[in-house]
Amino acid sequence: MPASPIRKLVPYAEAAKKRGVKVYHLNIGQPDIETPKMALDAVRHFDFKVLEYSHSAGNESYRRKLATYYQHAGIDVNYQQIIVTTGGSEAILFGFVSCLDPGDEVIIPEPFDANYNGFAVAAGVVVKPLTSYIETGFALPKADEFEKLITPRTKGIVICNPNNPTGYLYSQEEMDTLKALILKYNLYLFADEAYRDFCYSGKHISAMSLKGVEDRVILVDTISKRYSACGGRIGALVTHNQAVLDTVLKFAQARLSPPSFAQILGEAATELPPDYFDSTKAEYLKRRDVLVSRLNKIPGVFCPNPGGAFYAMAKLPVDDTDTFCQWILESFAYDNQTVMLAPAGGFYGTKGLGKQEVRLAYVLNTTDLNKAMDCLQKALEQYPGKTH
Amino acid sequence: MPASPIRKLVPYAEAAKKRGVKVYHLNIGQPDIETPKMALDAVRHFDFKVLEYSHSAGNESYRRKLATYYQHAGIDVNYQQIIVTTGGSEAILFGFVSCLDPGDEVIIPEPFDANYNGFAVAAGVVVKPLTSYIETGFALPKADEFEKLITPRTKGIVICNPNNPTGYLYSQEEMDTLKALILKYNLYLFADEAYRDFCYSGKHISAMSLKGVEDRVILVDTISKRYSACGGRIGALVTHNQAVLDTVLKFAQARLSPPSFAQILGEAATELPPDYFDSTKAEYLKRRDVLVSRLNKIPGVFCPNPGGAFYAMAKLPVDDTDTFCQWILESFAYDNQTVMLAPAGGFYGTKGLGKQEVRLAYVLNTTDLNKAMDCLQKALEQYPGKTH
Repeated sequence: MPASPIRKLVPYAEAAKKRGVKVYHLNIGQPDIETPKMALDAVRHFDFKVLEYSHSAGNESYRRKLATYYQHAGIDVNYQQIIVTTGGSEAILFGFVSCLDPGDEVIIPEPFDANYNGFAVAAGVVVKPLTSYIETGFALPKADEFEKLITPRTKGIVICNPNNPTGYLYSQEEMDTLKALILKYNLYLFADEAYRDFCYSGKHISAMSLKGVEDRVILVDTISKRYSACGGRIGALVTHNQAVLDTVLKFAQARLSPPSFAQILGEAATELPPDYFDSTKAEYLKRRDVLVSRLNKIPGVFCPNPGGAFYAMAKLPVDDTDTFCQWILESFAYDNQTVMLAPAGGFYGTKGLGKQEVRLAYVLNTTDLNKAMDCLQKALEQYPGKTH
Repeated sequence: MPASPIRKLVPYAEAAKKRGVKVYHLNIGQPDIETPKMALDAVRHFDFKVLEYSHSAGNESYRRKLATYYQHAGIDVNYQQIIVTTGGSEAILFGFVSCLDPGDEVIIPEPFDANYNGFAVAAGVVVKPLTSYIETGFALPKADEFEKLITPRTKGIVICNPNNPTGYLYSQEEMDTLKALILKYNLYLFADEAYRDFCYSGKHISAMSLKGVEDRVILVDTISKRYSACGGRIGALVTHNQAVLDTVLKFAQARLSPPSFAQILGEAATELPPDYFDSTKAEYLKRRDVLVSRLNKIPGVFCPNPGGAFYAMAKLPVDDTDTFCQWILESFAYDNQTVMLAPAGGFYGTKGLGKQEVRLAYVLNTTDLNKAMDCLQKALEQYPGKTH
């Protein structure tokens, strides 16, 4: 098991804070947006006396309201096609162990969320990374690139849309490419759509809306980012494939039930007004614009404009971002402040890639983002390992 | 993946309720004991505005207090040897995936908690069941019986103490047998001690207290039964083995964090007075005595006296408890009431065993328990599949 690329710099950040340096955290997708008060209040006002197991598939009342949420998002499912999970994490794990055998292979466009590795290792599944490139903004690789990786053990493709870590939003044409591949090679498509509600350029095309492959698509989802409720650990696995649902339910029964308190929160949040996401989206959009524009103004830095989520990838003029991200915490400060970034190497399955890239999560307000960019700019001026 | 033996009769129970029949649930370990109010209140009074990820290993403040709880229970650990998990379920899964490779074998005395199968399947681990017998009250099989099952792929033994589903409490001598085996064959001992605080006959000997095998013992634990907080989904993996802790932490990081709300509850519960368990234990003891005595008075029924937990196994004078437990829900009622039991076949890894046995969870008050026993007694008088 590889260590988390996001968390391995934590000791250096902690040491910096102990020295009195203010650290701007752009390294982790922990939004600063407030969790909707009405949803938190629903938890405060629970009235049971025994904290019981819920149904293994989640509370029916919650699943019914979730189905309505999905229908509004253009995803035609009923509540029986939804199994509530402990975060999106468990949805991915359940998807892997229910659809794949140990030794089976899945193709994942890289860079990808490093946590997928953990679930693949746990399920004995082999990850075949397929490189996408910062120069094209991390567009989906062409069909023939996928086909080069397909073997008799290939059983699935995993995508995250909009993408973590790149922010890339897949087009209708790219989704159709994926559809053709899963049809031609009889694959599962595991679609992580955790950031569905945060798209800025273009429309989100859910994998669940692809026609003719309904029984091949496994949607993995979470309320963590949608409602800024990361600590709740509530997600969902959604599919039209009844056999997969039956198997997932057995794994769900083995772990008894998803967390009860956060199901209350999730259920309440489904009642938020349709314009709830407007202000959150507007805020993220403003941040994205500040971040991307600041980054591209720094000499030698390139950051493609992400279409969704709240991440951006940037190429820095340094030899190795692992070293740079440690240096900026350990040996640098500007106005007694510094910034924490995620070196991108850990998001690549292919060793050696991403060494000049970092992921930035724009989870801070624009004032702090600007200060963080001041730090990055100064740091790049001073860094001894600069390449040009 | 096999279906849960506890839950597969649910549709028949639901149909009975729809017919207006009152169903006494002795089939599932969902205690009716109230969750401590002070712990629920701690959740009600949370004061954050953003429901953030916690530390992947759990909140440090909670882990520190948990360490104190363990020290009081005679388990000498510090907070860095504790990783907070999503229920005991995740602790078992993390233990398996961190210590074992796909294809490795674990020996589990049967009958055992059927959910272990789910985690073994997910981790690609092969379960080798070793039969214990109702006639001896489900005492631990002798060392030579274990040795017959040991192969080069055997990497661990899994025990639950006190035991679910049998209620058996392992003696010091039995724990020493296990210690000798793990030493001789260099195995891990996965010890599920979820019911540690509910022992009625004799003292609980934690696997963590075995001397000389500190780095081979993995404790899996949960607050579900301890504080009647099943829906919280908070457990822990505890071990002195630093390499295992390092690997578990990586899996913990992949799934980001355990649920935040129930960590608040768990932390508050560590502050309960030392006599908190006295009244709960007294209540369970009273129930056990009623249940066991009623069962053994029914002609043809045998129920050994369990030393801990809140389960009893009983042998019934019927040909097949799968059929009987369905019949009693579907075709029987006494005073418009009936009882739901868990057929024991699903708790055995060896096919065909346990067909005359049921598991009963004494999670109802004695009045209801007596009514449930009235139903069982009448049902056995009327059941067409009786063996004698």
